[in-house]
Amino acid sequence: MNLALQLAAMAKGKTNPNPLVGAVIVKEGRVIGQGAHLRAGEPHAEVHAFRMAGEAAKGATLYVTLEPCSHHGRTPPCADLVISSQVGRVVVAMLDPNPLVAGRGVTRIREAGIEVEVGVLEQEARRLNERFVHNMLTKQPFVTVKTAMTLDGKIAAHSGDSRWITGEESRAFVHRLRDAADAILVGIGTVLADDPELTTRLPEGGGKHPVRIVLDRQLRTPETARVVSTEQAKTWIFTGPDVDEDKAARLRELGVDVIQVPLSDGGLDLRAVLDLLYQLGITDLLVEGGASVNGAFLKQGLINKVVSFIAPKLIGGATAPTPYAGDGFDKMADAVDLLDLTVERYGADLCLIGYPKRAEV
Amino acid sequence: MNLALQLAAMAKGKTNPNPLVGAVIVKEGRVIGQGAHLRAGEPHAEVHAFRMAGEAAKGATLYVTLEPCSHHGRTPPCADLVISSQVGRVVVAMLDPNPLVAGRGVTRIREAGIEVEVGVLEQEARRLNERFVHNMLTKQPFVTVKTAMTLDGKIAAHSGDSRWITGEESRAFVHRLRDAADAILVGIGTVLADDPELTTRLPEGGGKHPVRIVLDRQLRTPETARVVSTEQAKTWIFTGPDVDEDKAARLRELGVDVIQVPLSDGGLDLRAVLDLLYQLGITDLLVEGGASVNGAFLKQGLINKVVSFIAPKLIGGATAPTPYAGDGFDKMADAVDLLDLTVERYGADLCLIGYPKRAEV
Repeated sequence: MNLALQLAAMAKGKTNPNPLVGAVIVKEGRVIGQGAHLRAGEPHAEVHAFRMAGEAAKGATLYVTLEPCSHHGRTPPCADLVISSQVGRVVVAMLDPNPLVAGRGVTRIREAGIEVEVGVLEQEARRLNERFVHNMLTKQPFVTVKTAMTLDGKIAAHSGDSRWITGEESRAFVHRLRDAADAILVGIGTVLADDPELTTRLPEGGGKHPVRIVLDRQLRTPETARVVSTEQAKTWIFTGPDVDEDKAARLRELGVDVIQVPLSDGGLDLRAVLDLLYQLGITDLLVEGGASVNGAFLKQGLINKVVSFIAPKLIGGATAPTPYAGDGFDKMADAVDLLDLTVERYGADLCLIGYPKRAEV
Repeated sequence: MNLALQLAAMAKGKTNPNPLVGAVIVKEGRVIGQGAHLRAGEPHAEVHAFRMAGEAAKGATLYVTLEPCSHHGRTPPCADLVISSQVGRVVVAMLDPNPLVAGRGVTRIREAGIEVEVGVLEQEARRLNERFVHNMLTKQPFVTVKTAMTLDGKIAAHSGDSRWITGEESRAFVHRLRDAADAILVGIGTVLADDPELTTRLPEGGGKHPVRIVLDRQLRTPETARVVSTEQAKTWIFTGPDVDEDKAARLRELGVDVIQVPLSDGGLDLRAVLDLLYQLGITDLLVEGGASVNGAFLKQGLINKVVSFIAPKLIGGATAPTPYAGDGFDKMADAVDLLDLTVERYGADLCLIGYPKRAEV
């Protein structure tokens, strides 16, 4: 199962909206087939594994990280393939999280007389498919907030200067995060202050440009902003109900989608934004600030994962900004706990990754 | 030499103002003597090791983490002991950092015809004696700033509430830091806001209570403050030149030392404070904030070591305070880099320890 999870993980960010799945077929202690789902529309992991194993699959054991599907999608149901292969036993890490599907694939295989075990390395499988599980349960994108700060919690000097907090290695990793996301989201403050391009620049070149999303309640995005003028990626601006229609029309002419959503507590209704994004095919959203946007996602309990870079430097400053602003919580006891914290190093920087307790799957 | 460093480290915080020293005597691949300096006024490491080795020391190799002393202090010079023991060879990790002494012990031993090698594991030995090295070179205490913040850089909610940021394990480690320090320093803001006791409470009981130091320019420390009313530890209040003499007299009657120092840039002159503290026997100072005090030490380049606890939680808040306040530096490029960053875990919390580049020895 470990091997199957590893195979699955290799396609990270490439299978959206589908899950990551790996499959391994073992007979007499030897691997006779293996496969992974590489991309939506292409064969499922089981198909690759059974093709490799051929006739030898008969009587073997199939290890698969996700319950084989039972429905006709762009490919025929894998449960049927499992049955016709006449494997002797199937080991599944986790059931399909979609409540409408969960268990049907396993039931169909069991009804065909094949032994099925469920729950092996389930925790690891759920973490691997954290994005897919969240999508299935909420019909919203999986939200990762990425920040970078000094060791004294600042994202800029009191003057606003912020170049650079982190080193090259950390910034390269951010481009990997972008490459794996469907969309990047920033607030209008970030567009006005930094005029970022928000494209993916991998050290080896290539990479996917996620959709650029700007939260811009009053439609202040300049027509000359890089997110408008650069054409490598699509840009969607979410704005409020009462905005200058001429400005919206001009931005649309420049190739940008302007989408109006309701307000909530004086800001854009973030839940409405997330619902819409999912309907528009965004399953995995990378929030890159600024502080007010991060703070709003935090306060409303909409963060699934936190990627926090910490540069080993101190800048000081009572008014220097911090990564999560907004109102914040009133009491330390109300702070959102992060679970399963891991620490990685990128050059001199640390990268702390954790999962807000409230959003835990 | 590794063993000698380990022996030395066991007395951490107990030898002040003396350095940590370990010694190991090896003959024919076997340890025949070992020792460490345990406490000022008690025998040096070499004395313990030679006592253990006895006559067998003749022709053996002595490994010692610091150059043997050449002067008569409270104990006779170790260089003479080394010579009279007739060891065949001496390996020294580092020379005595005191410019007035450096090399004299080694020279005396070499002149007696004994081979001496210097510089084995020198980096480790210098780090082990970071406090002593700094003392010798600057005649000021070694300054460690300890902070605790959320993963979004806050030391309290916007409301000021800060109980608790870190967990029990982290707080227990802070008491170990106190136990190893000569003095703890806080600003008057911390006294007024939190009324801390600033004593050492080790889980197993016991422990040393460092001197409590309050920076209080206008002498606002209440006579009812815990640092005044609790008697386990001494309290020294540093204040400005023009303060209410009656208040000072009342505080002194309550057993507190009130010490006037000049001002600098509107605050107490921190260099004058550090000079005085060293003269008063403080070699190792633990700064426990608040944010303004930390920021002032940072801005003036007076920090030798940073111990930064990070609790895996997010609280948000544009106005929530951060661990280093004050003016801060204007540009991110001017931020103080921390070297040799290490990461430890205390319960769910992280503890990042680093050394400001400017203060590096």
